[in-house]
Amino acid sequence: MAPRLDAVDLVVRARRGEARAVARLISLVENASPYLREIAAALAPYTGRAQVVGLTGAPGVGKSTSTSALVAALRRRGNRVGVLAVDPSSPFSGGALLGDRVRMSEHATDDGVFIRSMATRGHLGGLAWSTPQALRVLDAAGCDVVLVETVGVGQSEVDVVSLADTTIVLLAPGMGDEVQAAKAGILEIADVFVVNKADRDGAAQTARELRHMISLGDRPNGDGDLWKPPIVRTVASRGEGVDDVVAAVDAHREWLDRSGERDRRRLQRAESEIQAIALEQVRARLGEVGDATALPELAKRVAAGELDPYRASDELLDRIAEG
Amino acid sequence: MAPRLDAVDLVVRARRGEARAVARLISLVENASPYLREIAAALAPYTGRAQVVGLTGAPGVGKSTSTSALVAALRRRGNRVGVLAVDPSSPFSGGALLGDRVRMSEHATDDGVFIRSMATRGHLGGLAWSTPQALRVLDAAGCDVVLVETVGVGQSEVDVVSLADTTIVLLAPGMGDEVQAAKAGILEIADVFVVNKADRDGAAQTARELRHMISLGDRPNGDGDLWKPPIVRTVASRGEGVDDVVAAVDAHREWLDRSGERDRRRLQRAESEIQAIALEQVRARLGEVGDATALPELAKRVAAGELDPYRASDELLDRIAEG
Repeated sequence: MAPRLDAVDLVVRARRGEARAVARLISLVENASPYLREIAAALAPYTGRAQVVGLTGAPGVGKSTSTSALVAALRRRGNRVGVLAVDPSSPFSGGALLGDRVRMSEHATDDGVFIRSMATRGHLGGLAWSTPQALRVLDAAGCDVVLVETVGVGQSEVDVVSLADTTIVLLAPGMGDEVQAAKAGILEIADVFVVNKADRDGAAQTARELRHMISLGDRPNGDGDLWKPPIVRTVASRGEGVDDVVAAVDAHREWLDRSGERDRRRLQRAESEIQAIALEQVRARLGEVGDATALPELAKRVAAGELDPYRASDELLDRIAEG
Repeated sequence: MAPRLDAVDLVVRARRGEARAVARLISLVENASPYLREIAAALAPYTGRAQVVGLTGAPGVGKSTSTSALVAALRRRGNRVGVLAVDPSSPFSGGALLGDRVRMSEHATDDGVFIRSMATRGHLGGLAWSTPQALRVLDAAGCDVVLVETVGVGQSEVDVVSLADTTIVLLAPGMGDEVQAAKAGILEIADVFVVNKADRDGAAQTARELRHMISLGDRPNGDGDLWKPPIVRTVASRGEGVDDVVAAVDAHREWLDRSGERDRRRLQRAESEIQAIALEQVRARLGEVGDATALPELAKRVAAGELDPYRASDELLDRIAEG
């Protein structure tokens, strides 16, 4: 018989900074271990300290290089740093990851850095549900900052942004009408803009367009202490400008504290987290109704056009309520 | 007072082929109209006829051009065609759409074609839930084929693939190690491979790699009537090879019927659809528990580390069950 897992002991060891305990805990939460609840209970008292920094942008803007440079800058000032690289599980994006991880390898032997790729393929809603738990592990393990790096495409990225205290949106010049294309969504999510590859042609133009875009969002009569996203230029591959990014993140943290926005975001995040877990539980129950026969039988009637899917959903939920 | 909407009348008019009724119905389902249930009930008896063809691939492979060329080919043989272009609502991808729609404009005045872009921004889980309903509208409106075009990135794309009877995966030469990168996921989802831009260097190489990859998936002792995804080469911008794509889709449809796979996929699709609707309903209820105070209060305790999110989820679900 396999020995019973001691979640509390594992959390104690993670808090001591044992990399293997941290890795083990993340694997357990990622794979929905039967000990998930015990682990969550053991982690809870030690969470809420880390600053969560989201880093997102279109493919090719230099996310991994920037993450690596940020890690180096944070390490130089003694911060303990966690990195969660979230791959939104595309059949088409998997190939890029190897190179990314290689670039991060300079930090692989630093015991003040935990790096973890989260694969979410096949987990429906898996991102919303397992990433916060991995974040809790890194938080409890004493990370001062956790960087969550995502490819800037699709809903999953938006979900991850909702985890962050501070969201950095990366752009690069010469990516087509990047700013124009991005307009629709990034103003709402960006706390800090970084124009990477700033030594290339068009960097000034990209920054100018961004500045114009930000100014359009200005309120004529600023109501109180508003945050205006700064624009930082970097050449991440040479480490240029990266300390400015750290300074911008620090300034944003101060603003979060001062304005009360930090608490608001964390409450929002906790709500999303509870919701995601509850929905996952309901999803499991839906499949179990009537010894797992109810859903297939309703589906048969819907496929045959005898029943519409809304009434089928009602029937299923009624049967769960009946217990 | 606004006149009450007559869902049955609207469905009758859509079935007659009135474009405005079709557009109205899709808007209503997309925006979660209060008449959603009535509409779903009115549509149900008329659904299940259309062949749903998913079309996916990485940005830049020529999805919109291919869709447009396929529409033209299907129209030539008298099919009524629906197109759902699903934008997975990325802050970073919005800009590309205008050009796409312009390219489709050659079909804008053809009353045998319905074209609709589905924006999903902000709808959490919105894709899983509103796209199938839009599909039902086009199906009931008498479309022989509905093409669902998605950008091949992220979970949302996988969700949409699950809607299709036949999934076409588009590739193009010179997109880096595209096939390699794609390996992980596309074999499972592709029923037909299309190598577009086949007049470019590297097209033969891309096709060769694909063929090799498919052969690796061959079972040593084929168990019964298996489908082996064909590889079709096209230059969609000149219409070359597009009839071959149609022929491959037809062949796949025959196989779906013969093998019973079509029924299996449709049952699966109905299950997902019912599940998505049920989860959406539960999500709404979660926010309403205790006059909408329960979730924020639990979130407060989770954010403070007093409670773990799993126990918070249990409490919330218990309160829903208590009614």
